[in-house]
Amino acid sequence: MTDAYDALMEFERETGAIAHVAGRLSWDQETMMPRGAAAQRGEEMAAMEGVLHARRSDPRIGAWLATLEAAPEPLGPVQAANLRHIRRSYDRAVKVPARLAAELARVTSVAQGVWAEARAEDDFAAFAPTLSQVLKLKREEGAALADGGDVYDALLQDYEPGATAEQLSAMFGALRPRLKALLDEVRGAPAPARLSGTFDEDAQMRLARDIAKTFGYDLTRGRVDKAVHPFSSGSGNDVRITTRTAADDPFNCLYSTIHEVGHASYEQAVAQDYLFTPLGQGVSMGVHESQSRIYENQIGRSQAFTSYLFGEMTRRFGEIGVPDAEAFYRTVNRVHDGYIRTESDELQYNLHVLLRYDLERALVAKELEVADLEEAWNARFAADFGFAVDRPSNGVLQDVHWSVGLFGYFPTYSLGNVYAGCLHAALRRAEPGLDSALAAGDPSPATGWLRENVQRHGGLFEPRDTIARATGEAPSEGPLMEYLETKFRDLYAL
Amino acid sequence: MTDAYDALMEFERETGAIAHVAGRLSWDQETMMPRGAAAQRGEEMAAMEGVLHARRSDPRIGAWLATLEAAPEPLGPVQAANLRHIRRSYDRAVKVPARLAAELARVTSVAQGVWAEARAEDDFAAFAPTLSQVLKLKREEGAALADGGDVYDALLQDYEPGATAEQLSAMFGALRPRLKALLDEVRGAPAPARLSGTFDEDAQMRLARDIAKTFGYDLTRGRVDKAVHPFSSGSGNDVRITTRTAADDPFNCLYSTIHEVGHASYEQAVAQDYLFTPLGQGVSMGVHESQSRIYENQIGRSQAFTSYLFGEMTRRFGEIGVPDAEAFYRTVNRVHDGYIRTESDELQYNLHVLLRYDLERALVAKELEVADLEEAWNARFAADFGFAVDRPSNGVLQDVHWSVGLFGYFPTYSLGNVYAGCLHAALRRAEPGLDSALAAGDPSPATGWLRENVQRHGGLFEPRDTIARATGEAPSEGPLMEYLETKFRDLYAL
Repeated sequence: MTDAYDALMEFERETGAIAHVAGRLSWDQETMMPRGAAAQRGEEMAAMEGVLHARRSDPRIGAWLATLEAAPEPLGPVQAANLRHIRRSYDRAVKVPARLAAELARVTSVAQGVWAEARAEDDFAAFAPTLSQVLKLKREEGAALADGGDVYDALLQDYEPGATAEQLSAMFGALRPRLKALLDEVRGAPAPARLSGTFDEDAQMRLARDIAKTFGYDLTRGRVDKAVHPFSSGSGNDVRITTRTAADDPFNCLYSTIHEVGHASYEQAVAQDYLFTPLGQGVSMGVHESQSRIYENQIGRSQAFTSYLFGEMTRRFGEIGVPDAEAFYRTVNRVHDGYIRTESDELQYNLHVLLRYDLERALVAKELEVADLEEAWNARFAADFGFAVDRPSNGVLQDVHWSVGLFGYFPTYSLGNVYAGCLHAALRRAEPGLDSALAAGDPSPATGWLRENVQRHGGLFEPRDTIARATGEAPSEGPLMEYLETKFRDLYAL
Repeated sequence: MTDAYDALMEFERETGAIAHVAGRLSWDQETMMPRGAAAQRGEEMAAMEGVLHARRSDPRIGAWLATLEAAPEPLGPVQAANLRHIRRSYDRAVKVPARLAAELARVTSVAQGVWAEARAEDDFAAFAPTLSQVLKLKREEGAALADGGDVYDALLQDYEPGATAEQLSAMFGALRPRLKALLDEVRGAPAPARLSGTFDEDAQMRLARDIAKTFGYDLTRGRVDKAVHPFSSGSGNDVRITTRTAADDPFNCLYSTIHEVGHASYEQAVAQDYLFTPLGQGVSMGVHESQSRIYENQIGRSQAFTSYLFGEMTRRFGEIGVPDAEAFYRTVNRVHDGYIRTESDELQYNLHVLLRYDLERALVAKELEVADLEEAWNARFAADFGFAVDRPSNGVLQDVHWSVGLFGYFPTYSLGNVYAGCLHAALRRAEPGLDSALAAGDPSPATGWLRENVQRHGGLFEPRDTIARATGEAPSEGPLMEYLETKFRDLYAL
């Protein structure tokens, strides 16, 4: 039995290492690759995916699992967790017919290009037939995975193992009216100032790197580059992030960096023993997002930390258009109308996500068809945000996710925010002196607490349990809402 | 039969794509990887090597080859060339026992570190036991590959298919006395001036990129970065080079770049149809080196091109310590004493290589043992260069090659120079107006001729045939020696 476990884990570690190489290749594609290499890179990625798929569905895994699951001896927690992950991944790999997997890969790789063009042309009709194809295949895949159970729940497992739509809908259903009510309150109050001036982009990158280090990102095991979209990639001792700069908006660079540092620090903090095993990375998209969001928002946009940041920015950039730390805090947290999820503020962000969650559940459940999607999007947007979508690129065409088959991914963004709310409440209880450290530019009491209570465990516990163990209670939307209501009522003097 | 060929080639293309990914990983390691990722990267590379070894020795290849080789229909030239390459690679993969391959991988990965430390400590004795281990394994590997034939020849095939030590020794035996005689002549003449001043390193990189483009390197399918050692890596539409800068020596950056551009342009020029197949890359190390050396030396250090370069350098850097293009040409081609192969001039370079070739043949043939290697090196060095090696890091410890098991690689450097000599003679016959283009900063008549006559063929012809077809005659050392004697007698007014 030890032999079977060792053989299985050696095989898994090799697969993990190869998967990490594929991840490095994606990083390269977004940062370093010459543009003429795109088609060739597609062939390289397909070959790597072929290797990974063959390994993940290798019948030897089934045999090792059968031996180990039938063994009478009790397993240690690490062994049990590894087997749980491997069983889930193996079942997934063998449940989806090879024909369907290949068809999905083919269709989504084309669909992304079709989506990009339709968005550029502001023409949803040009994307609709392709999206219908993707949706049809994802419904098929979900049905194959669900084994008679709920199709949407089955898709959700790829991103948030253990989560169910029922659970999420309960949280989100409680969240939505309170967010809308808070938004209505804020909209009645005077708007804070905006930054003015232009901000040297090299100086923004230097500030971003310094702040990244301040938040505990280890640059001997990572690096920061510019890319079109900010992202974090890699595990263990090679976790890289990207950010972007705009001369008139230093917050874009800075808060994208802090967000990605949250993701990257999580990966860097996972116990080294777990490297390349199923435990050797963040446990789910939701828990991942909880780290990026608590770094970015509850810590990075706090009054205490922004008072430090105000000093740093005026020292580095001179006059920035706001008079003092108090005004700067309001500027950082300014609530502003907009169509685009990724540009949204902390208050409205989850309304964007909830809209997508409800629509994609309806799509998967065949309660909504692609032909009616644009109208449904626009109606829901007007209902939640109080104004109309002006064009598809500001509405139903804004996100890449559905084009590449990511149905079940969106809710993990809001789940991450809910988890961040829970963690933040527990963190404040555990670290009553946090604000004075943050005001001195030192987030280490927060990042240290998160490392110890969440990050180092990697995939050891199920996602929801990871949060529950760290906070001492079952996750709910309550702490997030209380935090938001307190923060924005205070900010807007309501 | 077409089915077997198609199946084999699909498999080969996937393997080629995965091998290219492994190459991208090595590039990353030398340019972008955070230093803390080294150990993890070792595990990633080992996993990739495992995948590649399994594919290259996959029994299905043997079955496909057997079917195709037994088929009565005649093959087209591309098919025949592919089968020849695949047969060679497959036989190699199955002849070397897995135990020996694994042991070689393990020992050489450690040996490189031992060598680096011994070199830093100037202590050959610290490296000798490890080198003996590597040599023992390489002798075993050579014997397994040779099937009773010559062991050194068997090792040579990895780098220069079709070459034999007998052939090389005949060329090199004729080369050595003429090189020594020419060196003696030059040493009697007054030495040219050196550059003076310091040269902004960013400006050096800008010049290097401009010159790279001038030589036809397509930067939409490549990129230039800094690294400790200059190298070229990749195939087809993703071929990247590195260079390095030193403030007091702009020629280091510039000629390293032109050298690597020779390698990279070859890869970029191979017919696109061959991508990821056995024909889709430079055919051998020797032919590869012929391209890098003809770009660097016969073109890049020609009187015509250096007259253009003198103008560019004075325009960009101001006063550079030499008065005119004539003096600049002599400075670029200054013959200077030195211990280190990679810093050597065009005249002495091959004496460094021939020394290594003779020693490594003796080592493989058990005519020389590692215990006596340092003494043999120093005696040969004194005989060829006329002065004594002062310390092992300037002698037997200077090159990494043997530590990583590269026995049979060194002679391809001089073979490349011999080939470059042959190609240059043919090029001058074909392009009589070349010098006036070069003087105007336009190497395209040369690079175009090489692309058409050598580079586009990739692996279609055997290495020696590739040169013979381009030049119309069997390769020999004659043209190289005539070129060198004419050039240096003229330069040194002998």
